[in-house]
Amino acid sequence: MQGEITLILGGVRSGKSKFAETYVIEHGAPRLYLATAEAFDSEMADRIARHRLDRGEGWTTIEAPLDLSGALAANSTVDNIILVDCLTLWLSNLMGHNRDVEEDIDRFFKTLSGLPGPVVFVSNEVGQGIVPDNALARAFRDHAGRLHQRLAHIAGKVYFITAGLPQRLK
Amino acid sequence: MQGEITLILGGVRSGKSKFAETYVIEHGAPRLYLATAEAFDSEMADRIARHRLDRGEGWTTIEAPLDLSGALAANSTVDNIILVDCLTLWLSNLMGHNRDVEEDIDRFFKTLSGLPGPVVFVSNEVGQGIVPDNALARAFRDHAGRLHQRLAHIAGKVYFITAGLPQRLK
Amino acid sequence: MQGEITLILGGVRSGKSKFAETYVIEHGAPRLYLATAEAFDSEMADRIARHRLDRGEGWTTIEAPLDLSGALAANSTVDNIILVDCLTLWLSNLMGHNRDVEEDIDRFFKTLSGLPGPVVFVSNEVGQGIVPDNALARAFRDHAGRLHQRLAHIAGKVYFITAGLPQRLK
Repeated sequence: MQGEITLILGGVRSGKSKFAETYVIEHGAPRLYLATAEAFDSEMADRIARHRLDRGEGWTTIEAPLDLSGALAANSTVDNIILVDCLTLWLSNLMGHNRDVEEDIDRFFKTLSGLPGPVVFVSNEVGQGIVPDNALARAFRDHAGRLHQRLAHIAGKVYFITAGLPQRLK
Repeated sequence: MQGEITLILGGVRSGKSKFAETYVIEHGAPRLYLATAEAFDSEMADRIARHRLDRGEGWTTIEAPLDLSGALAANSTVDNIILVDCLTLWLSNLMGHNRDVEEDIDRFFKTLSGLPGPVVFVSNEVGQGIVPDNALARAFRDHAGRLHQRLAHIAGKVYFITAGLPQRLK
Repeated sequence: MQGEITLILGGVRSGKSKFAETYVIEHGAPRLYLATAEAFDSEMADRIARHRLDRGEGWTTIEAPLDLSGALAANSTVDNIILVDCLTLWLSNLMGHNRDVEEDIDRFFKTLSGLPGPVVFVSNEVGQGIVPDNALARAFRDHAGRLHQRLAHIAGKVYFITAGLPQRLK
């Protein structure tokens, strides 16, 4: 699956990260974990620490809360596989830093089209609840939904995880 | 699929409208777009304008933010196909205008049973997030859930769209 | 399916309770309905009354808003089938009474492993909307997601219900 893109979607605590990690381990190539999380408070720090513990040995971890495109371009090779966890956190970081999100997303897709190695993306489904009161939250849902559509379109495989169980969407 | 009902569900920005439009275009009959949106603020006006642009040529647009049943009865023929986008907006309009929602829904199903031509309904899945604090939002989720169940029951086909990818539920 | 566990997930008003009831009735054994709901306000009392009415005759109802494990252990036999509706309400009750939720969940799984008869669990998918502002709501989503994963792992069958229509996940 050299250069192939895989998208793994699911709700919060759906088991999507676990599924993605197993998927990447079974691929067999040297694996990089590209973390988009920023430990800006203790709740998030706990979540990151727990994830790292759950993941176990054998991962090279790179942190890229904002410059996801740069980190992908710098680290993808024909011999490795990259797991990006997760895209909705990346979007949330971009919005929190007042970046031009659409521009960053366009650059992201430009980068993807030139990567030599396979990448597996984990992302949160956030659009199946009630419309939030908060305009920023609505914008976030819109960005996430559009990003997922574009990524699913170019992905070779798309999975949706519920209660740890995968459904293959593509 | 004369007289047949199709229901297309999905989260926000899931690609459900795009899927529905392609579905209706491929049907081949003259197509009517029955819009339930009301442009009560600039955010909604932008969203409507963007949808209209995305849709392209070849649609006759009818606006029916409240009297959906009347618009369906007046416009359905054996020779055309109607796309209704979307039902959750219609529900939201009914509630915003303090209508008797259950009565309007009963009338809607009575109307559906007598329509000569096919209708494709788009609607938002809104019930898979946390219970909202707001009582109105909870009532809205309940109305939407019940409406989807009743409609799915009489529909010939039901699809769920995630990241632009359809799953056939019925 | 003696001793077997079945998990039925879905959003609010997705038809999951109705599906579960039909499923249990078709099983044929004497059936117990284990209700986790507490009628702490009139909205909830209405919801409980409506559910009881929808359910019809032939059920022995047991109320267990907190001690679900005890109620399962006391009532499961090789000859009956128990329907638990629903797990997210149970979680919500535990949190509302400041219980040690992880401890209660561990006890729950210990109990499950020793039950003689089949149990069908209904639970709400609550993790596919936007991240809630409220820390308690975030903790609730995390508990629910982890509980669903663990339960799905040991279940013989898992269904996800949308608009009254089941998808078999396992």
